[in-house]
Amino acid sequence: MSEKNRDPLLLTPGPLTTSAATKEAMLHDWGSRDGRFLKVEAGVRERLAAIVGDPDNYVCVPVQGSGTFAVEATLGTLIPRNGKALVLVNGAYGRRMARMLDYMGCPYHVLESAEDSPPDAGVVDEALAADSALTHVLAVHCETTSGILNPIEEIAFAAERRNRALIIDDMSAFGALPLNARKVPFDAVVASANKCLEGVPGVAFAIIRKRALEGCQGYARSLSLDLYDQWVNFGKTGQWRFTPPTHVIMALAAALDQFDAEGGVEGRHRRYSRNCRALVEGMRRLGFQSLLPGAIQAPIIVTFRMPADPKFVFEAFYDALQRRGYIIYPGKLTIADSFRMGCIGHLDEDDMKAAVGAVADVMADLGVKSGAPA
Amino acid sequence: MSEKNRDPLLLTPGPLTTSAATKEAMLHDWGSRDGRFLKVEAGVRERLAAIVGDPDNYVCVPVQGSGTFAVEATLGTLIPRNGKALVLVNGAYGRRMARMLDYMGCPYHVLESAEDSPPDAGVVDEALAADSALTHVLAVHCETTSGILNPIEEIAFAAERRNRALIIDDMSAFGALPLNARKVPFDAVVASANKCLEGVPGVAFAIIRKRALEGCQGYARSLSLDLYDQWVNFGKTGQWRFTPPTHVIMALAAALDQFDAEGGVEGRHRRYSRNCRALVEGMRRLGFQSLLPGAIQAPIIVTFRMPADPKFVFEAFYDALQRRGYIIYPGKLTIADSFRMGCIGHLDEDDMKAAVGAVADVMADLGVKSGAPA
Repeated sequence: MSEKNRDPLLLTPGPLTTSAATKEAMLHDWGSRDGRFLKVEAGVRERLAAIVGDPDNYVCVPVQGSGTFAVEATLGTLIPRNGKALVLVNGAYGRRMARMLDYMGCPYHVLESAEDSPPDAGVVDEALAADSALTHVLAVHCETTSGILNPIEEIAFAAERRNRALIIDDMSAFGALPLNARKVPFDAVVASANKCLEGVPGVAFAIIRKRALEGCQGYARSLSLDLYDQWVNFGKTGQWRFTPPTHVIMALAAALDQFDAEGGVEGRHRRYSRNCRALVEGMRRLGFQSLLPGAIQAPIIVTFRMPADPKFVFEAFYDALQRRGYIIYPGKLTIADSFRMGCIGHLDEDDMKAAVGAVADVMADLGVKSGAPA
Repeated sequence: MSEKNRDPLLLTPGPLTTSAATKEAMLHDWGSRDGRFLKVEAGVRERLAAIVGDPDNYVCVPVQGSGTFAVEATLGTLIPRNGKALVLVNGAYGRRMARMLDYMGCPYHVLESAEDSPPDAGVVDEALAADSALTHVLAVHCETTSGILNPIEEIAFAAERRNRALIIDDMSAFGALPLNARKVPFDAVVASANKCLEGVPGVAFAIIRKRALEGCQGYARSLSLDLYDQWVNFGKTGQWRFTPPTHVIMALAAALDQFDAEGGVEGRHRRYSRNCRALVEGMRRLGFQSLLPGAIQAPIIVTFRMPADPKFVFEAFYDALQRRGYIIYPGKLTIADSFRMGCIGHLDEDDMKAAVGAVADVMADLGVKSGAPA
């Protein structure tokens, strides 16, 4: 498709650019209690659970809404009334989990590290040793605030050694960064349709250790967000308790077909890594500086420091890029002025190179000589 | 489109059959923080609020998820921690509101009437007079369990006389049965995209009296379901707090164009009334008996008593109708064995007549002589 006629490409952390096949799956209406829909939907749950590699011990429980709905549902369903959480924070999504616990009236302790610095598993261990009331560790795999990759395996082992449960917000990385339940011990991992699985927004899910979920009757703080009740209902009737977003789910089924065809997590990781490299290298050639060193930069979303050139005005840069067919994302850092560009979604290396080309054109139009920060 | 190639028509209470234009609106990807999406989305909120006829005093606050999410969000946001609710129950959706209050730990009193019998405004008045702790009345406009039309105006006046707030679950009737805030006093009415507005499922909303919402900071029991916080955020940034279902919202915008073109509530009510009449009259000719007398039968969904003929097996009837391109709905009554057929969605009188024709064919195939109940 010529660039002029196509929709802008979304270089954001989601919603993302999705394939035509994914969107075309929404051109039909389905009865939410009809057997044909239920069969596809059950397949989606099975395929999602299988991604963490231990289908005998883990179940997928989806929920209507955005990823935040699924995170709050998981915390509310799994953490008992007398529970206490250790929340690892190095960005907005860790902080958001703490805010959810405030609503629930659930006590917690925050371990905060800087936004460009991963949490330290040794410090997690010390915190767990120091407070026997702590029942759950809450961690973010890839913190979209910066794009940082947190050391989820080390955190998982620290929690396991101290016999505490781990809940992982894997929103922006699920499906592109490996997370194998047979290797990394966790009670739940939470993600959404419209990130690396390349579905459309409207449904999210948790993949939960069956043994943990079985004991959670009556814990939930909300009917809509009660994943235990939804799980039991799937067992009894195969149905959602409340109207599911049928079109969004059919799009996810189509997106999973494409995910499988690409080689699952491995294939997707490979493409996103290429995208990320093309983006970072291209932007560097224009003088831009990415926030994170390569070792902790997940191939999901890249934070660039704001250029020092006074002719660089972010709003004008954003608008001009949009007119050229690329939608980028503002920064969310508290430690530095920045903006972000995603490298996930139905995009390839050529798209990223073309995006960098558009950035160069926009800089020329604005009279910006270099993307170098102060 | 020939019947053979088209998708089955959904004679259900939702998700419904939607138009091609509505579904085709989902063939594009939108950035959820991009100005072009936000402009359409703000228009959707304004148009929804305008449907109750008092845009100066009421605001629309949408929420991701099904109608149940919006009902729970509204109860949780508007009822203070020291509040108490009077819940009017004559079916599953009234009972569901009581269940939400259980999760919240909010005290309530239930006024129950039979599933084929509307609540009595005089009894509501007595209950409110008897218990000064009651702060909110919760009522369902059209209870989908039976299809019954509840006397929402009389209930609203009873609540107003006693100076209590009214929250209306108008899920299945909003957009097809008139509800004018200048005539019927209420604090909130809750509905969803995928009922009489003929959008697709994935987003729901409350239309809330501004004066009531203003005082609700800190009431909500859930971050995801905090409509006050979402409303404040719309005011500050024009944005959803958490990823909205962008495709579903664009479909709703397209559905609202068609709603306006049909003449709004009046036009839709007219078509659904014709659909309902064609359905009930046609089914009666085949011997079926609808549960409710015409005066309390909303033109939304019709409950039919199960035929007495032993050759009538509901599962076989359902499957055969599905093969002929019509999806119907099981019953939900506790007082009688029944099934349901909806008359809302992108359907007209001819569709309903064709559905009745399919019912006649299926009866002949099954050897059922008459739809008459015992």
